[in-house]
Amino acid sequence: MRNETAGAEIARLISLLARLPGLGPRSARRAALFLIERKESQLAPLIGALAQVAEKISPCRDCGNLDSVNPCAICTDPRRERGMICVVEQVGDLWALERAGAFPGCYHVLGGTLSALDGVGPEDLNIVRLLERADGASEVVLALNATVDGQTTAHYLKDLLAAKGVAVSALAHGVPVGGELDYLDDGTLAAAIRERRGL
Amino acid sequence: MRNETAGAEIARLISLLARLPGLGPRSARRAALFLIERKESQLAPLIGALAQVAEKISPCRDCGNLDSVNPCAICTDPRRERGMICVVEQVGDLWALERAGAFPGCYHVLGGTLSALDGVGPEDLNIVRLLERADGASEVVLALNATVDGQTTAHYLKDLLAAKGVAVSALAHGVPVGGELDYLDDGTLAAAIRERRGL
Repeated sequence: MRNETAGAEIARLISLLARLPGLGPRSARRAALFLIERKESQLAPLIGALAQVAEKISPCRDCGNLDSVNPCAICTDPRRERGMICVVEQVGDLWALERAGAFPGCYHVLGGTLSALDGVGPEDLNIVRLLERADGASEVVLALNATVDGQTTAHYLKDLLAAKGVAVSALAHGVPVGGELDYLDDGTLAAAIRERRGL
Repeated sequence: MRNETAGAEIARLISLLARLPGLGPRSARRAALFLIERKESQLAPLIGALAQVAEKISPCRDCGNLDSVNPCAICTDPRRERGMICVVEQVGDLWALERAGAFPGCYHVLGGTLSALDGVGPEDLNIVRLLERADGASEVVLALNATVDGQTTAHYLKDLLAAKGVAVSALAHGVPVGGELDYLDDGTLAAAIRERRGL
């Protein structure tokens, strides 16, 4: 990216913005300009918000969620069922389930999936703490991605958790709400038929 | 965007990131997570780069380019032809021309275009300074967008500049390099035929 004429500071900002997921070099340039041309209304507040997050946000010692309190607000919420634990790969998955208001229990963020290809083994994931928390839990819901690595990890965890006598479940497969059959892949359609419900 | 559970700091960061051009709520969430999970390698450097830009970058008093020196590096570059001035709408347009290495002279950033719809009049643009700079210039190139507002502004400036006896030119219309005729709009094709070159 040639931007010598724009000053080293701007070039550096653009290259850092371009690393953000969803931003390429072109949109990073537009974002940088947007910020520079709005120093008071956008740039200063963004610096403040980033500094606040850098200072205050840390992973919850129990579940791995990111929050400004530790344990996080979900883990300490008395309205949450402590005996139900929903295992997710990443914090973003936890946020997605929370936006859906889908789960009344607590969470556990694994921090990824087992992956032979990427050299991720059980010791790289937040599994030891999950097994500790699973003692006394009534149910563990494995909400891992429907990818090969996600499902491999789910099987691995199921064996460990079942050995402890905990009920283990997984997300249902099926047709997305609002989804059109014509656009769905064969695997999803086959699962939706296989797991069909009585009406 | 419901993110109460993620802490007010994160929700605030996401809402600020979502205002950046090219980022919506979903990619803003991903970007926020990306940063929070990489405090040392990404978040801290980004805060530093933003703070540097906030502190050091300002519009060039001559041309309106953004730089850490004032006048900007282009205006003070002895290799640049001071008598040629390329008028652009925004700093991003200047950057685009610089990336192309297309222009040997200096620039002038108008800061927008005349727009009856948006209530932008001549007094809202950096026109007075342009007319001052045009005194003694050999040529002014109007590199405004090929939009209605851009071309209206170009005509307005042409009249003012021609009255001073300065040579005024505009970017050529034609087929983009690498462009396929079948995908071009009628206006571009008509212009490319009208302005055809001898071979």
